Formats: sequence, structure tokens, C-alpha cells
Amino acid sequence: LTIIVNTGDDFTHLGLWISPDLDTVCYTLAGMANPETGWGRINESWKVFESLKKLGMADWFQLGDTDLATHIVRSVWLKEGRPLSQITHDFCQLWDLHVNVLPMSDDPVQTWVYTDEGDFEFQEYFVHYKCKPIVRGFKFVGVEKSSPAPGVVEAIEKCDVVILCPSNPWVSIDPILAVPGLWKAIQGHLTIAVSPIIGATTVKGPAAKMFAELGIQPSALAVAQHYGSLIHSIVIDNSDNLLAQEITKLGVHPFLTNILMHERQDRGRLATEIITYISRYVRG
Amino acid sequence: LTIIVNTGDDFTHLGLWISPDLDTVCYTLAGMANPETGWGRINESWKVFESLKKLGMADWFQLGDTDLATHIVRSVWLKEGRPLSQITHDFCQLWDLHVNVLPMSDDPVQTWVYTDEGDFEFQEYFVHYKCKPIVRGFKFVGVEKSSPAPGVVEAIEKCDVVILCPSNPWVSIDPILAVPGLWKAIQGHLTIAVSPIIGATTVKGPAAKMFAELGIQPSALAVAQHYGSLIHSIVIDNSDNLLAQEITKLGVHPFLTNILMHERQDRGRLATEIITYISRYVRG
Repeated sequence: LTIIVNTGDDFTHLGLWISPDLDTVCYTLAGMANPETGWGRINESWKVFESLKKLGMADWFQLGDTDLATHIVRSVWLKEGRPLSQITHDFCQLWDLHVNVLPMSDDPVQTWVYTDEGDFEFQEYFVHYKCKPIVRGFKFVGVEKSSPAPGVVEAIEKCDVVILCPSNPWVSIDPILAVPGLWKAIQGHLTIAVSPIIGATTVKGPAAKMFAELGIQPSALAVAQHYGSLIHSIVIDNSDNLLAQEITKLGVHPFLTNILMHERQDRGRLATEIITYISRYVRG
Repeated sequence: LTIIVNTGDDFTHLGLWISPDLDTVCYTLAGMANPETGWGRINESWKVFESLKKLGMADWFQLGDTDLATHIVRSVWLKEGRPLSQITHDFCQLWDLHVNVLPMSDDPVQTWVYTDEGDFEFQEYFVHYKCKPIVRGFKFVGVEKSSPAPGVVEAIEKCDVVILCPSNPWVSIDPILAVPGLWKAIQGHLTIAVSPIIGATTVKGPAAKMFAELGIQPSALAVAQHYGSLIHSIVIDNSDNLLAQEITKLGVHPFLTNILMHERQDRGRLATEIITYISRYVRG
């Protein structure tokens, strides 16, 4: 299993390089994630953050003490010239995490959200403005000049299946697909998306809101259309059974199951179902 | 009262700009200093430092959580282009500290200690190597090109008396005196040193050890000789009464009292005695 992670959300805050998606993936897999917030670390303390607030620092991006240590170390290592992929590998080792987690690129790519209230770096839009401004479009600044991180293309080339996780298609998956060479590398492989939309809403995050604001009725069908010819199959919720026919017309196989994940065991169940489905699909 | 503080000890650690002497002065005056360690903050926690150690970071320079916030904020402000003198002023405001604390310079000056085990940045020598290597000399890198911080020369010009506090002459006072223009600015003024040495030892810190390693018998007399023509008077301990005659021969007036400061009230007493002494001295 290789996990290729979006770094378009990365940003510099208080002089520290923060990679929110890499951290969330690693913290989650290492069992260190905070299940209540969906970001940051479990059993977290806020000593430095409280002091920073007293010194008048911006408080819209919350930084727990153990999380802050991650950002300090990453920033030191980046300044020393260590690439983000190496840093991510080193963190995985330190956290006893035996999964191959790769940033999409070692080059800086910055997701900007164009809105009716101005253009924002992703974290500003997402955390500071709580996704309230109406989205007009996106730009992944620097992506044209970026290269896939070492191992990314190799992992795709030798894999049996590429799964586009139920992350936000616009701002979590698209930045990865925009890294030169990645779309092409994926095209040769069996590729399955998991819909982040059930009915017309997302379980969490602004994906459905973004579809609507860009003039597209949010649905699992819209997700399938979004990925277009890249995907062979899409995993959608049982409740979206009425969309199956339309999705099939796109040349995409719908796989219906319960895709809502509340607990850890829901994730395991869905993953197992998808693997079983793939085996059938591949044999089929 | 204007306090001009050595910044030769400043260094970058974990990507953060740390000004140990400015912090110690401000924390002490704001009643936030840790009286047990002599550095850092009182009621401190170590959450981030513990996490940093787990991630393999150097642990020779201890960073408490509230102290770390100071370094993060200072580093952010420096990166924004705010001069250190302005930053120090802003911290004093935030800490409700109504004393004029000035760094000797806004320009970076770096104290290096030449030893028989190699050359070290001051904090490395002082904290990492615990002052163990034998000192051969010092260099204040960048001092020739530095300018006094705004307000430093002005404060000296309008003052009644300059007091060289009982800090280490070699590495705490000398860097200040080496800033171009400061020795000359002080020369026109009544200047009194307080000896950091009683008998042949310092109450704390490596001053006596440095005198000895440089081939000079450590004593209050050696301190008077070190400052030479710059000082008119030196405050020495009652127990050093046998040195009074030799000091007088240098053209320096010895003022004998109990200079050992254990508690806050000792500091108040010594300060009051020195002020009384100055009044007498000035009246002549």
C-alpha cells in the first residue's frame, strides 16, 4: 500500500512549514489523530498556543503542543535541505508507521481558492474563513513546474489498482492529478474512485458546496463526471442507487454499498469490500 | 533607567531566533523568571520539548512551552523586518514592563569562544559544553559593522551614571562595549562597575574561570584592570578590602559593601547602596 498525499494545502504559519494532509494521514495511521476534531493529535495540550495568543499571534489556526513539535522539526529539516518525501519517511519511521506515505511532490504547490470575497490560500479559505466565501475556481500555484516525489510514479506503475479516496475532488485529489505525469501514469491502471458525496451532501468538508457553487448539482454522478475517463469504477452509497444507470452511461461501473464511515471498523469494512470488489472486477 | 543588553549570545536554534540575555532581563523584571534555573520562565511546562526530543532533536538547549512562544513570536517579527529593539519594546508592553530595555544593537553580533577544544558559538560553549573547554580568547563576529540600537547612545548621553552590572566582563559586558561608538559614548560619563568576582571566584557563571584560563589571577582588582580607564569606581565585596589600595592605584575608587545577592531584597539593598554612593560621589 502506497498513499500519495496532497500537499497543496501546505502553508507557512508563524514561520513554520505545515503539511496538514500529510500530518492527518500519518497521525491517523499511527493512531495519534484526534478523532473529535478531525485534525491534530489526540491527548493534546495547548501551552504554547495559549502563550502565542497572549502575545497577539493569529489564533485562527490552532496548534497543539505535540503537533507544533512536528511542524518545528519538519521546518528545521526542510531548511537543512531534506526533501519533504524524506522527511515524511523519517516521521513514519519515528512513529513506527510501516506504510509508504508519499507527498505528491517535493516541490511547493499552493492551492488557491478564488471566491466572491477574494482569492485565498487554501488554509485561509478552509480554516480562517470556514469555507464561507462562494467558490469561483481553483489554482494550484507552482504545479506546472512540480515533479512527482521520488517513488510516486514508480508506485503507480507497479500497482494493481489506484483508489481515489473519498477526499474533496476539487482541492484534495485534483492537486495530485495536476502534478505533471501523474494523470498519465494513472491512466494505464485500474482506477476506482470512492464518492465523497451521498445524496447531494458530503459527510464532512465543502466538496458538495463547491460543486453547487461552480454550477454543478452535487451527487456521486457529478463526482464520476468530474474524474471522467480516468476512472473505471466508482463506489457509491446504496441510497444513490438511482444514479447507477447514469453513471454506467459514462462508461464507469458503479459499485453500491454503504460508504458512510463513522468508526474505525466502518473504514475496515469498506476497504475490505472494495478489495473484494476489485478481485472480482480484475478476474471479471 | 535604561538597560542595555548584550545580544552576542543570540543564536538560531531549531529555526528560531533566541535572545537569552534579553529574555532573562525581561523575564526577571516582569517577575516571570525561573529563580531556580536562572534561565527560562517560572511555572513552565515542557510539552513541546518532550515531543522534540522524541523526534530526535538536540536536547542540550532546553525550551519551555511559554518560553518557546517568545522565540516563535520574535522569529516571526524578525522575519517581518521588525528590528530587535522594536520587538523588545513590544514584548515589554505585552508583559506590562515599564522599563526601557534595549538590545545593544539591532544588527546581528555573534560571540565566539576560542577554546583548546575548538571554536564555539557562545551558547554551544556555555550550555552544550557547560563551559568546560579551556578558553583561549573571544571574538564578537559582526560587531565592527554593527551600530548601537536606536536609543542606546541617546540614553547614555543623557544619563547621570553608567553602571556596568556584575555580568561576565568577557562575554556579557565586552560585546556591548565593542559596539562602535559605545565605549566613546560612555567615556564622558561617571561609570561604575560592580565586580562579579568575590575573592577569586564568581557566584555563578564562568567569569573567574575565564580570567584564570587567560592567565589573569581572578579578583575584583582584575575586573577593575579589565575595564581600565573606562570606570571611575568599582563596587567590591567587603571581604576584598585588601584589594582597595591596589584598585585605588589604578585611579579607580573602590566602594566596599556586601555585593553577594541571594534574594530579591539583596538586589534592592545593593542597588540602593550604589545610588546613595553615587549621590555622595557626584556631590563630591
